[in-house]
Amino acid sequence: MTDSEAPGKAPGSEAPPKAPDSSRRSERSRRAIYAAALDLVSENGYARTTVEGIASRAGVGKQTIYRWWPVNSKPAVLMEAFLDLAEQANEALGGDAGSEIPDTGDLAADLKLVLRATVDELNDPAFDRPTRALAAEGVVDPALGAEFTARLLEPQLQQYVRRIEAAQAAGDVDPAVDPRIALELLVGPLHHRWLHRTLPLTHAYADTLVDYALRGLGTRP
Amino acid sequence: MTDSEAPGKAPGSEAPPKAPDSSRRSERSRRAIYAAALDLVSENGYARTTVEGIASRAGVGKQTIYRWWPVNSKPAVLMEAFLDLAEQANEALGGDAGSEIPDTGDLAADLKLVLRATVDELNDPAFDRPTRALAAEGVVDPALGAEFTARLLEPQLQQYVRRIEAAQAAGDVDPAVDPRIALELLVGPLHHRWLHRTLPLTHAYADTLVDYALRGLGTRP
Repeated sequence: MTDSEAPGKAPGSEAPPKAPDSSRRSERSRRAIYAAALDLVSENGYARTTVEGIASRAGVGKQTIYRWWPVNSKPAVLMEAFLDLAEQANEALGGDAGSEIPDTGDLAADLKLVLRATVDELNDPAFDRPTRALAAEGVVDPALGAEFTARLLEPQLQQYVRRIEAAQAAGDVDPAVDPRIALELLVGPLHHRWLHRTLPLTHAYADTLVDYALRGLGTRP
Repeated sequence: MTDSEAPGKAPGSEAPPKAPDSSRRSERSRRAIYAAALDLVSENGYARTTVEGIASRAGVGKQTIYRWWPVNSKPAVLMEAFLDLAEQANEALGGDAGSEIPDTGDLAADLKLVLRATVDELNDPAFDRPTRALAAEGVVDPALGAEFTARLLEPQLQQYVRRIEAAQAAGDVDPAVDPRIALELLVGPLHHRWLHRTLPLTHAYADTLVDYALRGLGTRP
């Protein structure tokens, strides 16, 4: 391959379309770089992963990485690898990158579907290992943590906001409830179990969270 | 000081009581070791903190640490430093080491009191910095994560379990609710904001979590 070709979705892809052969080679290199980056983060942690290591594992020259991700190369290529991982996870659920939480009119059923899928994702080593390493680094590195939250986490949380707003419009959720806080009663417990390894993440657990959050813990008057 | 004196609460303290002077010296060394351990974990992370570094910062011989914590010295001394930190935080709240969540008969008020105190703790750099470093290491190191959870986190969570059980006995919480899951609707969101740095941790947020968890998000029938 030639190092100067920009990958399909990387920064700089505003360049005119390449001939099919060179595009395929670039796409293959881009995928190899993402896979190598996620592997190395899983194996060695975020801090010890280097551009040189990623290039070597991916079988590309390190100048390819520096050329495609010229600014803050290491965090830039890693963030893109994680965004791609999230996109793949989303596609595996039958959605696409920007897919919304389904709205069948049954809020509990829709939330259970999404939380069960999140449980499956967090239990899948291909997702768990690199994401756990990224989260751990974000916990102690404020700048990385802020970027992780802004680019990966918050866009997912906003899907919950929109679904809860729709439920408010439909009369299923108290209009006085703040959707941005409400979603944390669902997502917060899942992350707590995942990050702190307290108890198993199961579909039954996901269902129970939805039931408790929607109905509340108190006895009915 | 002589290296052979065991500190007041360290393993090996079954030895006969020492003369007051040597006990005071031991206690002073023990506190210096805890403080040094937490400082170094805050500054350098858990993985890069060493017994030698702790001893040097505390102004004691490293043999003191190896003698007082002979098995798995580094994780042992660090875990004890964190247990001591949690105990101090508890005492600062006016409780003691094994103190329970208050039971005034008003579940919402009692939970808000505890969650507000947790917010203050997570916003206090003396608690936040080392605890964040420990949590980050637990996220990627399953053995350490399991010990962190078993010795530090789960005992705190069990205080919520007991308070919720009391509320069930008093008729304030649905008896069908599983208290061990219910508490996660309170604690999970707090940790999510803390670890992922999404939005500020405030008393108003703590209060809202309690209100949403107890009353539920749904509209009343």
